[in-house]
Amino acid sequence: MNKSAKNPFFARRGLMLVLSSPSGAGKTTISRALLQHDPNLVLSVSYTTRPMRPGERDGVDYHFADEATFKTTIEKGGFIEHAFVFGHYYGTPREPVERALRQGIDVLFDIDWQGTQQLTQNALTRADLVSIFILPPSTDVLEERLRRRAQDTEDVVRSRMAKAADEMSHYAEYDYVIVNDDIARSVAHVQAIVTAERLRRHRQVDLREFVEKLRTPQRSL
Amino acid sequence: MNKSAKNPFFARRGLMLVLSSPSGAGKTTISRALLQHDPNLVLSVSYTTRPMRPGERDGVDYHFADEATFKTTIEKGGFIEHAFVFGHYYGTPREPVERALRQGIDVLFDIDWQGTQQLTQNALTRADLVSIFILPPSTDVLEERLRRRAQDTEDVVRSRMAKAADEMSHYAEYDYVIVNDDIARSVAHVQAIVTAERLRRHRQVDLREFVEKLRTPQRSL
Repeated sequence: MNKSAKNPFFARRGLMLVLSSPSGAGKTTISRALLQHDPNLVLSVSYTTRPMRPGERDGVDYHFADEATFKTTIEKGGFIEHAFVFGHYYGTPREPVERALRQGIDVLFDIDWQGTQQLTQNALTRADLVSIFILPPSTDVLEERLRRRAQDTEDVVRSRMAKAADEMSHYAEYDYVIVNDDIARSVAHVQAIVTAERLRRHRQVDLREFVEKLRTPQRSL
Repeated sequence: MNKSAKNPFFARRGLMLVLSSPSGAGKTTISRALLQHDPNLVLSVSYTTRPMRPGERDGVDYHFADEATFKTTIEKGGFIEHAFVFGHYYGTPREPVERALRQGIDVLFDIDWQGTQQLTQNALTRADLVSIFILPPSTDVLEERLRRRAQDTEDVVRSRMAKAADEMSHYAEYDYVIVNDDIARSVAHVQAIVTAERLRRHRQVDLREFVEKLRTPQRSL
């Protein structure tokens, strides 16, 4: 457990950390570094109805589910957010997230603007949410990164650029914005945001009791 | 200029950093360390009508003013907050703070709950404000620190404890709460809060223009 995660004085409610960015802005690298260095942060594994791809593992990359099961879960309120993207459902299961937050464990979400919008607009999740949008330093850098996956046709690159432009149009719905010019600096910046947000008054659940004790002199003067 | 203070991509509006705590919780030590290590942070010097004490310098510790001048300045709206405490006026001059914020310089305030309440309730300053309340780890530690200034009578110590209890009753009006058990850790925590708050979307003033450019492909594909 790292020093900044645990407060020895009173319990803290976990936070929901959302990182969004256009593909090619470095989000995956930043997420991996965060999870590697912060034992109090866990990744939320989404449910999806899309087919498993080679190399993916059920329960690790996604929980793979059929459409009927997914729809039943929606009806039961089992997702805190879900979206239908390019013919497939994606959703975040409610129960593991709520359990982690109660235990003071922070949860990292790899969701796009649609999912973030649902968490931001929902009064039940807003207070737990910390949302960060990651931008590339320039269009050229973004295009370079999107081209690096070689053998792509111009059409594929153009469609990726359009998707990135669409995602970026939602930057103003996020709490923080980081321009990822340098991975090490961006990781340090996200870590500072996590450290700061853990110190927010409203997450420190037994604070009132702690302060009341401080205000009562222990010894007779 | 340290790395985290300046964003090379677009301008940022400065923030107003308020540290409050009961006397004896370590605020002065933390403030000094912050100012020493952060060239983008400056201390706001208050005006006061109380007499200068030995060792104090006009314009450094306070701007010393007579009551008539102070009251005229209040009437002209020259203070962003002011209070009357134990027979003397204290106030924060508006102009130097607004100039610093426009220039992207962050300003540290050493004010109590009364001043903080005014900045929190004022719609014109709320968005710039970042408020941190520093608590001692226990009543015993607080009392020890208040007793350290030797030769004090029990009456003086009792009155200081009562004043500390009064100040602490306002912790819930602050954005962040830090329990100062270890000075180095507390300084690091305040620095993380400053780094994080500098990355808040709403402080990044030219962000919209920057994103619009990113969304427009530079080269023809």
